[in-house]
Amino acid sequence: MSDAKLEGNLLVAQSGGPTSVINASLAGVVREALNKEEYIGDIYGGLNGILGVLKEEFVDMALEYEEVIQGLRNTPGSALGTCRFKLKKDEDYERILKVFEIHNIRYFFYIGGNDSQDSADKIAKLAVDKGYKLRVIGIPKTVDNDLPVTDHCPGYGSVIKYIATTIKEIALDNQSMGQHDLVQIVEVMGRNAGWIAAGAALAKNREAPEEAPHLICLPESPFVLEKFLQRIQDVLKKQKYCMVVVGEGLVGLDGNYIGVQSTTATDAFGHVQLGGIGDYLEKMVTQHLSVKVRTAKLGIAQRAAAHCSSQTDNDEAFLCGQAAVQAATVHGESGKMITLQRSDSNVYSCKTGLISLSEVANGVKKIPENWIEEEGFGLNYQFYKYALPLIQGEVPMPYENGTPAFARLSAHRVGKKLEAYKTA
Amino acid sequence: MSDAKLEGNLLVAQSGGPTSVINASLAGVVREALNKEEYIGDIYGGLNGILGVLKEEFVDMALEYEEVIQGLRNTPGSALGTCRFKLKKDEDYERILKVFEIHNIRYFFYIGGNDSQDSADKIAKLAVDKGYKLRVIGIPKTVDNDLPVTDHCPGYGSVIKYIATTIKEIALDNQSMGQHDLVQIVEVMGRNAGWIAAGAALAKNREAPEEAPHLICLPESPFVLEKFLQRIQDVLKKQKYCMVVVGEGLVGLDGNYIGVQSTTATDAFGHVQLGGIGDYLEKMVTQHLSVKVRTAKLGIAQRAAAHCSSQTDNDEAFLCGQAAVQAATVHGESGKMITLQRSDSNVYSCKTGLISLSEVANGVKKIPENWIEEEGFGLNYQFYKYALPLIQGEVPMPYENGTPAFARLSAHRVGKKLEAYKTA
Repeated sequence: MSDAKLEGNLLVAQSGGPTSVINASLAGVVREALNKEEYIGDIYGGLNGILGVLKEEFVDMALEYEEVIQGLRNTPGSALGTCRFKLKKDEDYERILKVFEIHNIRYFFYIGGNDSQDSADKIAKLAVDKGYKLRVIGIPKTVDNDLPVTDHCPGYGSVIKYIATTIKEIALDNQSMGQHDLVQIVEVMGRNAGWIAAGAALAKNREAPEEAPHLICLPESPFVLEKFLQRIQDVLKKQKYCMVVVGEGLVGLDGNYIGVQSTTATDAFGHVQLGGIGDYLEKMVTQHLSVKVRTAKLGIAQRAAAHCSSQTDNDEAFLCGQAAVQAATVHGESGKMITLQRSDSNVYSCKTGLISLSEVANGVKKIPENWIEEEGFGLNYQFYKYALPLIQGEVPMPYENGTPAFARLSAHRVGKKLEAYKTA
Repeated sequence: MSDAKLEGNLLVAQSGGPTSVINASLAGVVREALNKEEYIGDIYGGLNGILGVLKEEFVDMALEYEEVIQGLRNTPGSALGTCRFKLKKDEDYERILKVFEIHNIRYFFYIGGNDSQDSADKIAKLAVDKGYKLRVIGIPKTVDNDLPVTDHCPGYGSVIKYIATTIKEIALDNQSMGQHDLVQIVEVMGRNAGWIAAGAALAKNREAPEEAPHLICLPESPFVLEKFLQRIQDVLKKQKYCMVVVGEGLVGLDGNYIGVQSTTATDAFGHVQLGGIGDYLEKMVTQHLSVKVRTAKLGIAQRAAAHCSSQTDNDEAFLCGQAAVQAATVHGESGKMITLQRSDSNVYSCKTGLISLSEVANGVKKIPENWIEEEGFGLNYQFYKYALPLIQGEVPMPYENGTPAFARLSAHRVGKKLEAYKTA
């Protein structure tokens, strides 16, 4: 923390997979920055995450209309564009500082998940090493909800509101079908932790255990086929249908992903591209049980479903953006990430906190073991208590001609000042 | 048409796959029936479609709370339950008349698609043959929008509003990803006609042809792999990503379904269970082009998405229920199905009409050839003009604890009066 008042320009960028409220955090940064004239000169948005920083691709956010900044709060996708580019070379980090220096960028806000916070951490440290005055604050974002320390991540409340809503709707459809012995599989996201699949539990009235979803398969509970098939049969003895919600990152007892081919592509961070566990389970159930199986795979729809986002989540995403600017300017903080801290009171409330970026980078928060039911196929009251406040409230969505009216940046480009960046 | 005033009880049942507004039609029947005391005594709901009629499984709709009837307008699934049971034997039809007679049922309303209207037609004709005074009116329902004569079907506007919304959201996510050469496939329903896939076109601003969806694959346009792959490459030359929307009932030049295994199960009507075309196209694209592919399969979620239904569709579904009761009572109509008739004016409006059940039963309405773009991968202005009015307006949804509050019938059973029905 530094008491010295730092004046200069601001750069905000977005990274990784979008959430339906990632732009609410962007709006929060811009709004708060406009109130901090004594610290902040120009407000730049970096296009396509860290790659746009390397390439000096900036837009002037202060030239956007007020309605557009407001509209960002309802708009899915990353308005500035995003990337899955891993900074590897020392020269890349040095290039970033060079870009910052020539544009007099003194405030850098990076909205992203684990990998992005790691990049932000390295940039902050290099600036200190080189004696370049820079304040770096990370703003958490991930539907996966797997960042450590923070109570939860902006983006998570909305994805599980959408999933709980969808499961509740599919359940009524399944329930009304004359067909008995129907197995409905819904594949959702969640690479390393089962937070998203767990959110489906909120579709269920806790006093009506017969309601869907009947089985939730989590990466936290190693998958055993026999146990899974047995549980389906147990459910179908009592119910007309069995709803299974499965997170894409399901693992077996050996710790390997289930249903992923060895030929599968990996991304820049070496992560395997998942998706396909629903089809795999469909195949297994069809082979072993004489039941009808239907599968849905929500895919990108779930993390983009702004039309069904949570007001609580949206407000908190915006708040995180504001808090980042406040922390970096007024409080002179740097090398930190904004966290959400839940109050101890029985009535839900949340304020922001700060942790060191090095504490969050590349850590993964899983669902606590004692929140998962003994057999591993459901969540207990602890999870409900945790997750239910996060989905409260509906975001009023402006519609135009029958579909949501989303905001689009006019994206006035800022002139480049350096030689072109050479990608390796 | 008969001028003689007929007094007796009413039975309403639901059949086939639900839509998100099928219960709005049920609510329309019940509301209108309560206004027709001079014709109608008891108001029964038949459980699980025609199967519940055979089994004499009725509930007394007049005993439901007013809030529940109102809540049905927002509730997906078929509140009375549905079935895919085909009446085959003459004894089944005779049993139905026997059930009607002993419960003094003189008005029968069947909310369903092609197959259901066929059953309704046969029941109406048998009643005439046997001299049993009965008025039968079919109420159209199908997300597939493939019933002939009616301008469109209740249920269709809502499913395409949800799909256009979802495509618009996924598109913003795709567009914002740093990744180039991304192919996004979204599989939607639509067995015999491409109406649902076509609806995705409404996500696109007509003045911005570069917007998603880029390719829409319709059963009306026989699928040729080489042409499909070529078009993807053409799109990827200009855009970062290519969004493909595909209806599950895609056929090849030989008229056979694409990507369906010969071992696939069929239902009671001999229809092949579809679903899987998205995965098939994903495999083909991955094999032939060096691009990243992501697939989503919306499955049942699309026809159950009451949280994103169309007010226009919802109002029309309710209106069809009311009109059916009005036609059967005041106008003495029978053996007819309610249709929606669009006015010729430039401002959209719709009233109900009637056609003979025999005209609708088992007919299939496809998308007119001259509404489809030459290459077969998109829709022209004719389709927009047709479909856009159907998705207008949002249905206010009551929420409870963060998810939609749906209605549930208390379902007071009516006593059985006959020996038990024996299923074959």
